[in-house]
Amino acid sequence: MAVYTDISEEELAAYLKGYAIGETLSYKGIAEGSENSNFLLHTTGGVFILTLYEKRVERAELPFFLGLMQHLAQKGINCPLPVARSDGELIGELAGRPAAIITFLEGVWMRRPTATHCREVGRALAGMHVAGADFSMHRPNRLSVAGWKELWERARPMADSYEPGLVAEIDAEFAAFEKGWPVDLPTGVIHADLFPDNVFFLGNSLSGLIDFYFACNDLFAYDLATCINAWCFEKDHSFNQTKARALLAGYQSVRPLEEAERRALPLLARGSALRFMLTRLYDWLTIPDGALVQKRDPMEFIRRLRFHRHIATAAEYGLKDA
Amino acid sequence: MAVYTDISEEELAAYLKGYAIGETLSYKGIAEGSENSNFLLHTTGGVFILTLYEKRVERAELPFFLGLMQHLAQKGINCPLPVARSDGELIGELAGRPAAIITFLEGVWMRRPTATHCREVGRALAGMHVAGADFSMHRPNRLSVAGWKELWERARPMADSYEPGLVAEIDAEFAAFEKGWPVDLPTGVIHADLFPDNVFFLGNSLSGLIDFYFACNDLFAYDLATCINAWCFEKDHSFNQTKARALLAGYQSVRPLEEAERRALPLLARGSALRFMLTRLYDWLTIPDGALVQKRDPMEFIRRLRFHRHIATAAEYGLKDA
Repeated sequence: MAVYTDISEEELAAYLKGYAIGETLSYKGIAEGSENSNFLLHTTGGVFILTLYEKRVERAELPFFLGLMQHLAQKGINCPLPVARSDGELIGELAGRPAAIITFLEGVWMRRPTATHCREVGRALAGMHVAGADFSMHRPNRLSVAGWKELWERARPMADSYEPGLVAEIDAEFAAFEKGWPVDLPTGVIHADLFPDNVFFLGNSLSGLIDFYFACNDLFAYDLATCINAWCFEKDHSFNQTKARALLAGYQSVRPLEEAERRALPLLARGSALRFMLTRLYDWLTIPDGALVQKRDPMEFIRRLRFHRHIATAAEYGLKDA
Repeated sequence: MAVYTDISEEELAAYLKGYAIGETLSYKGIAEGSENSNFLLHTTGGVFILTLYEKRVERAELPFFLGLMQHLAQKGINCPLPVARSDGELIGELAGRPAAIITFLEGVWMRRPTATHCREVGRALAGMHVAGADFSMHRPNRLSVAGWKELWERARPMADSYEPGLVAEIDAEFAAFEKGWPVDLPTGVIHADLFPDNVFFLGNSLSGLIDFYFACNDLFAYDLATCINAWCFEKDHSFNQTKARALLAGYQSVRPLEEAERRALPLLARGSALRFMLTRLYDWLTIPDGALVQKRDPMEFIRRLRFHRHIATAAEYGLKDA
């Protein structure tokens, strides 16, 4: 929720000489995207997003993220298209940081999504999974079970100070994941962070998916499980089965789930809840209070984790036969 | 540097029904303007800034600020034009706060202004002073000598902890102001906060003045003195006389200064430095470290204050005969 790096008009003018999108008309730091510095850029050539990649994003991984957006956009998925520089590259350098310019997508993200929006998200997620099938690059998911374990080992000594009993509870979760985490489900490129602020709508029509900076190769059904966590719980933590049913039906209208994926869904949803709980907990325990970063409470995802622990079959989420 | 209030797409859609600017295409919270929540709004009717007024701005004063922008825009000054609602009002209510929509101005603010930019700022400031002459509303300057005294009385008990000796130094300044502050100079509507982030340029041409939320009726020459403080010192606190000469010449090319204004300029510049030092000092001493507000160091303006104290005549700023 902050612009970390400001840039001067001279730096920007010099940077834009590497592109064929005209000259600066205006640029405004926007208060979205917690990992990078984003500017809404108007030039004589159009409207764009300029991103400076801050330290959490590794430079070596940018070609995967930007190449994926380019691949998906060319396949007809509504997502930003990286603008190539005159030298053919998608990535430049600005203010000492890797930088890229992508097209601006109109649309608003839904602070209060309805079941109709959830259905559209399911359809778009499956569409992305299908369109990514022939993307040639590969990036492992650093935030799957092994990555969670690392985070947990760093947070564990302080975890009971946040919530008494959390150490025993999460240790037991890891025992379950290490035994039963599925390895033979359909895989491909997943978004891995498809929360409402990463999906734009114009009215009820989905106008774009954004923020592919957690994208990686992993289980398709895990991506869908993350969407259940991201879209189907209310502010009071209650589970909205109508929304989940719509999400799952939307997904299956494009890509029907296999039987093994259906069976795995409750465990995947539990794992996904753990993943978001852990990154929030780690930040909560380690980022100093004075930092200009809005820390988000991990409790929301502890509650989701507990909810999924008591789900026996995906039918309880409202999953129907495809 | 933060969006304080987020709004939902439903709230915004409902709010826009009160205007004739079409429907929402997108809105992004922008990381500029420290007092209010600002969104860059694209609708089917154009590009706008939507502002929610947070608690530091008094609702009763909004008609002055918005009426002034309307008056100046209609006089040909490059500044945002408030968009009237279908009911004729300039101010509505959104998310429990007063809200307004103004036109979006293209342009960038100069992180590193040159003397050419300073000359343009001088011309524009004088243009605004002339154009405001027949504006019918009136707002006293709450941040003139009496207002500074109030701020100082609240900050004074803690001031020596910030900078040893500051209490004695500032007490002596007040003695000078209370004796010598001019009262019979030409007055009218002034901007009162014309720092570089409030002036847009396209190349070397000034494309707009923004942020009129400190505007008030006060001495024209005091507004010019504030511009000396805002535009003519380098990052290392040195005074750039070439820039000041350009600023003053630009101003006088539109509105020549009277002899009494010229004589008063060093004292006015000292007062203006004190004004910005005091608001920063007060925030520095009272805003908790954990707050999502970027606190700015008062020292920059203590140094300016000390500089102006040793200026005998405005000729030292580079002021020439008009």
